[in-house]
Amino acid sequence: MYIAVMGYGTVGSGVVEVFLKNHDSIIKKCGQSQLDLKYILDLRDFPNDPNKDKFTKDFNDILNDDEVKIVVETMGGLHPAFEFVSSLLKAGKSVVTSNKELVAAKGYELLSIADENNVNFLFEASVGGGIPIIRPISQCLAANEIDEIAGILNGTTNFILTMMIEKNMSFDDALKLAQENGYAEKDPTADIEGHDACRKICILASLCFGKHVYPESVHTEGITKVTLSDVAYVNNLGGVIKLIGRAKRLGNGKISAVVSPCVVMASSQLANVSDVFNAILVRGDAIGDVVFYGRGAGKLPTASAVVADVIDCAKHTNRKKIFGWGPSEDDYVVDYRELDTALFVRATADDIEKAKKAVKKVFGTVKFVSRDNQPENEFAFVTDNEKEKELIAKLDSISEIKPCSVIRVSDY
Amino acid sequence: MYIAVMGYGTVGSGVVEVFLKNHDSIIKKCGQSQLDLKYILDLRDFPNDPNKDKFTKDFNDILNDDEVKIVVETMGGLHPAFEFVSSLLKAGKSVVTSNKELVAAKGYELLSIADENNVNFLFEASVGGGIPIIRPISQCLAANEIDEIAGILNGTTNFILTMMIEKNMSFDDALKLAQENGYAEKDPTADIEGHDACRKICILASLCFGKHVYPESVHTEGITKVTLSDVAYVNNLGGVIKLIGRAKRLGNGKISAVVSPCVVMASSQLANVSDVFNAILVRGDAIGDVVFYGRGAGKLPTASAVVADVIDCAKHTNRKKIFGWGPSEDDYVVDYRELDTALFVRATADDIEKAKKAVKKVFGTVKFVSRDNQPENEFAFVTDNEKEKELIAKLDSISEIKPCSVIRVSDY
Repeated sequence: MYIAVMGYGTVGSGVVEVFLKNHDSIIKKCGQSQLDLKYILDLRDFPNDPNKDKFTKDFNDILNDDEVKIVVETMGGLHPAFEFVSSLLKAGKSVVTSNKELVAAKGYELLSIADENNVNFLFEASVGGGIPIIRPISQCLAANEIDEIAGILNGTTNFILTMMIEKNMSFDDALKLAQENGYAEKDPTADIEGHDACRKICILASLCFGKHVYPESVHTEGITKVTLSDVAYVNNLGGVIKLIGRAKRLGNGKISAVVSPCVVMASSQLANVSDVFNAILVRGDAIGDVVFYGRGAGKLPTASAVVADVIDCAKHTNRKKIFGWGPSEDDYVVDYRELDTALFVRATADDIEKAKKAVKKVFGTVKFVSRDNQPENEFAFVTDNEKEKELIAKLDSISEIKPCSVIRVSDY
Repeated sequence: MYIAVMGYGTVGSGVVEVFLKNHDSIIKKCGQSQLDLKYILDLRDFPNDPNKDKFTKDFNDILNDDEVKIVVETMGGLHPAFEFVSSLLKAGKSVVTSNKELVAAKGYELLSIADENNVNFLFEASVGGGIPIIRPISQCLAANEIDEIAGILNGTTNFILTMMIEKNMSFDDALKLAQENGYAEKDPTADIEGHDACRKICILASLCFGKHVYPESVHTEGITKVTLSDVAYVNNLGGVIKLIGRAKRLGNGKISAVVSPCVVMASSQLANVSDVFNAILVRGDAIGDVVFYGRGAGKLPTASAVVADVIDCAKHTNRKKIFGWGPSEDDYVVDYRELDTALFVRATADDIEKAKKAVKKVFGTVKFVSRDNQPENEFAFVTDNEKEKELIAKLDSISEIKPCSVIRVSDY
């Protein structure tokens, strides 16, 4: 049996590296007598690569080769990845991908095609890099009704926030450092605006709650508006600011899903997750809270998740994984503003004492918080839990203050 | 298809509860048209139980019923669990167990019998309660060579240590509270002496490193000698004392495995694991560190892991899980004293200044640490990393001091 790898970038070359390095033990784990790499598809030239005899620029070489039973897709992007993967599944080949954009946009469609053609479409590496999360949710927690899922899903933004929290570095400096370290792309938009985290929470929510959740339906805020001033207040509150993607099963067959910076209190298992690490909390009805922690990105961690899926495909050539991931539904994801939350608010005011009185009058109980070097015209507070829409209306009604930052407070 | 449950204690009754409560979604996940509970084996009477028509006291009812394809063993203990499970596997039934004593002592044997009879022997619930760990190690991390595994594997001792650390409660008071809360047995020996954690690290090490590790070969220390004085020094060092089970692949085809209290520094992902929670760190060559966190015990968490294994058996009736767990070997587990470690030492001395000088002379660099209300004749220090045997020899050579506590410092 042969495999092919499409896309020889960071992850793709990592897959080839891990596959060849641990080849003996991989063969053993597959229960196959033979499992080898036959093709690497990439439009670029790699004249000095040790696997140079395996390169092809023609997708049809892979599609039409009956000896290739498993194809790894690590090209990224929606097109032509979607067309390639569809064709391969229809040709009776199993596909393993690390492409979260593809899974978030086309997961249901591709799983259906895989199902019709009696092959597997696996995507463990699409969320949390090498952290085992897709398989534990679909198999190990199968006896649970999952109520909620929340996580630090993007290593780049977590690195930036960690530098802001621990080194008092500005957002711009931290972003620059992330780029220098290779943690952030030259164009960091997908990370810092929360799109990457959004794709991942869509995949997790689709898996946990059984209906496809599209990125467009999920309210998404990035971390570009988080300031060192916010970080300092939140530190005095006993918490940290993290970019959290979360989704929750509501009582009425609907779900909520949001990506935004959140205040996470120190006692939470998500508070101590630093640098490029990711952590995902799953709340089930029988198990309670379970947390999965590890490197959410990087060449070898992600590659190891891809190769584990390859082993799974090779081990069980006649078996389809059942994910229970159905089509979406209109208005399945409710307006996040209808949900209860507490808010951290940083604001300025001409007359702080008057402003605080007005805040107390409108919100009832609030907790004021201070920081070192606090400007005379600035203050911050945390509200009680209430429907977000109401909280925002209350905030808007206070003419004495000018809100600068409004950050949700997480309840786990 | 039918299942049977043997042993209607905490876990067994939890299995029945979770199985019946989530029956519809379980059936769906199995891809079976029917999967029902047929027998509950227990020698006790449960006249008011809603499932009372399913009880039997005769093991042969289950063994001889061809409709029963999956049997859950939640009786605990080695005998007759081992004889029952062997017979069932030989009769072509898959068995799911939460019994860590059974798996730690007979895992290789039972997996071999299962293999010969083309059925499954699954034991996800035997380590970490409901935390997914067995399947992630055997499947998701399959592309990794696992180098090391370490964890807080026993909820009872972690609760006791948490009370000592956070509430300044004595060991005896904390144990009493654990018993009142139902976290500790009337006879707490297996927990507080580390035997339970030892069985779990044996199962994990067998799985990660491929050869059966027997509890007798693992040096095991409990937490009964940990004092509030140690806790206070370690707190000032920036750490906490945790009962850690760990196993490590050595270069020479051997492994090390130890269970003992350890100093865990605050930056570790294991430091923030409180109360009855468990956490397991796996270090792989490609993935780096991954941590799994959750409730390591309790009726519903453990039951949910058992039921997930039942679903797996029902889903894949013709498929054997490959664990790669082979027979043991002589001298496979090396003497823990041959390994490098740092040590925390609390000692008394008649002349503290003279004692400190002697310590410095023998050990070279050490870090002294103080605490509130430190008695005049007591002091504490942490050594550098060195072979444990050498460190102990050095300690024994210092006639000026009388060591009261010697605790390993963990390096993760």
